[in-house]
Amino acid sequence: MKITDLKTPAFLIDLPKLKTHVQMMTERAQKKSVILRPHVKTHKTAEIAGMQTTPEAPGITVSTLAEARFYQKSGFKDITYAFPITANKLNEAAELSASLPVFNILLDQPQTLSAVEAHGREHGTKFKVFLKVDCGYHRAGVDPSTPESVRLARQLAASDYIEFKGILTHAGHSYHCSNPAEIIEIARQERDVMVQFADRLQENEIACDTVSVGSTPTAMHAPDWQGVTEIRPGNYVFFDKFQADIGSCRMQEVAATVLTTVAAHYPAHNQMLIDAGALALSKDLGADHLGHEISFGAVKNHPHLKIFSLAQEHGLITANDPIAFEKIPVGSLLQIIPNHSCLTAALFPKYHVIEEDQVVDEWTPMRGW
Amino acid sequence: MKITDLKTPAFLIDLPKLKTHVQMMTERAQKKSVILRPHVKTHKTAEIAGMQTTPEAPGITVSTLAEARFYQKSGFKDITYAFPITANKLNEAAELSASLPVFNILLDQPQTLSAVEAHGREHGTKFKVFLKVDCGYHRAGVDPSTPESVRLARQLAASDYIEFKGILTHAGHSYHCSNPAEIIEIARQERDVMVQFADRLQENEIACDTVSVGSTPTAMHAPDWQGVTEIRPGNYVFFDKFQADIGSCRMQEVAATVLTTVAAHYPAHNQMLIDAGALALSKDLGADHLGHEISFGAVKNHPHLKIFSLAQEHGLITANDPIAFEKIPVGSLLQIIPNHSCLTAALFPKYHVIEEDQVVDEWTPMRGW
Repeated sequence: MKITDLKTPAFLIDLPKLKTHVQMMTERAQKKSVILRPHVKTHKTAEIAGMQTTPEAPGITVSTLAEARFYQKSGFKDITYAFPITANKLNEAAELSASLPVFNILLDQPQTLSAVEAHGREHGTKFKVFLKVDCGYHRAGVDPSTPESVRLARQLAASDYIEFKGILTHAGHSYHCSNPAEIIEIARQERDVMVQFADRLQENEIACDTVSVGSTPTAMHAPDWQGVTEIRPGNYVFFDKFQADIGSCRMQEVAATVLTTVAAHYPAHNQMLIDAGALALSKDLGADHLGHEISFGAVKNHPHLKIFSLAQEHGLITANDPIAFEKIPVGSLLQIIPNHSCLTAALFPKYHVIEEDQVVDEWTPMRGW
Repeated sequence: MKITDLKTPAFLIDLPKLKTHVQMMTERAQKKSVILRPHVKTHKTAEIAGMQTTPEAPGITVSTLAEARFYQKSGFKDITYAFPITANKLNEAAELSASLPVFNILLDQPQTLSAVEAHGREHGTKFKVFLKVDCGYHRAGVDPSTPESVRLARQLAASDYIEFKGILTHAGHSYHCSNPAEIIEIARQERDVMVQFADRLQENEIACDTVSVGSTPTAMHAPDWQGVTEIRPGNYVFFDKFQADIGSCRMQEVAATVLTTVAAHYPAHNQMLIDAGALALSKDLGADHLGHEISFGAVKNHPHLKIFSLAQEHGLITANDPIAFEKIPVGSLLQIIPNHSCLTAALFPKYHVIEEDQVVDEWTPMRGW
């Protein structure tokens, strides 16, 4: 089957590019002597997670318990659930702990520690737990400069109902950067904060086996992971317009696109209608902090076109100059490079895997919670 | 089962509110002597579409061909596919035409008319076609003030391969309004443009049986549908924060919420973490044209809280004043009123139907294209 035979909108994965990115990050981790534990939320498929893992580094990171169940059933044996656990999820987490050789959870709240210990007393569970640390992003995690953070680590390490695995952070503020130089600074901060905190725990005689960091921008640009043991990038398998805009990759390296049909020309408004709307692209604004004109993705091979508006199934394209409509007839196919490939991929019940203009495979991601 | 037993995030539908809205719009259409052909893209379930239709008004509107197939299989017999058709979708559309007593498509491009006629010559198909009209929204449709619009209508009416059904518009610019008075103006424009165009077609001896309009804001506020035969609102079954903000409903009437768990408190940043992120809420900004502070939804019963940031599974809440954390302990459940219920609903593989604090049913929407 050829790309031109597909129904639109469709989510396309360029297999050679995907393989290049997977290999690049695997080699980068090996070269820098850190374990790669990829975040698979970007794609949620067994196929890509299989490519990303190796016998030496079999672990993955997931964003939901449903993902953990899916990967457990798909044969993965070492999973970190990278969202702070809550009391109402402990039964599900306990089932996963029982069915997996390694199932790690995250915690950063004293109240949740109490709930984990109560669960342990009642059910005899012993969870593998990371302390989630805020390295400057301010989304989640303890502030490692406070006495409370060391106190919580000590409580985790001392608990009868917990196997304390180490400390974990996500430098999501790397997404606020404008260029690789800025990303390198965030990567240094991510490393420094975590290594200093691990040292503080050591001084307090709290063993901290794993120091886990990661975001695709910092994983691409970190000059040094000395003291870090594990990285958890995810987006790198596809990359996207955001990553290209901030300098994590080049636009032509993005491995995921949305195939769409030009449904109409409206020359009076210098507009075209495509059948990729908010449900095909997501309303992620991309790297809007860079002050670019808003576009809900880039149109491959047509860099002057902007997707300026999305309704549920309608996408509207315009340009600053008059569009050369005759070069893009009604019925033409376009490929849209998504602003944020994780959110775009999540909207599709299946992915079409391509090599040049051929569809070579079809993968089914997991969905829901 | 109680709401408190559900896994989070979960999409909740308040059944009594839903029924009230369904009945309200059905009665409104009957009272004003127009046929209600609800747009079911908001929910994509057989259950709600069943409530919205009657023996006298059995028709529905869909946004994708996959929805049309789902509803055909679910026993619906009168479906309008409300996105301009393209040549690459004609085979699928022909199958639907063959399997449904009424299957209407939209067209606004001369090139697409040529494709439809070529398909008819080759396959013997005769499509039921609406001319899509732009009543001022400038998303899709012919400009009814131009000679080209009448020419295209004449070609549709004269074609051997087309049954010309009438004219259809969507006043999506009602979503740019700030209050009911402005919406009433758009509703008048929507009606006036369409009725005047129907009159022009009549003068040109082009029969135009159906004059179809519709958006939830204009359907809620139109003072007069004289000359209109059909309305196609969709969002009204749930409403959402956007509709409340522009005055289509009151916030307490919104029938859809996302149930989420408070995962962490971060008093140093006056922030709370919830387990409803971009994949549970969508990144729709809501009625940002009103100049409100950005919030990705409203927190029910906590109007001072703002959801200021969404990552894939992380939602971050703050407030202008210090949050009373002790009133919303870690582990608490919150309900989020979505900015745009259509996009939020589309992210969930199932819906939980509630009456007060009880879960009374579970509905499975269709997904994909």
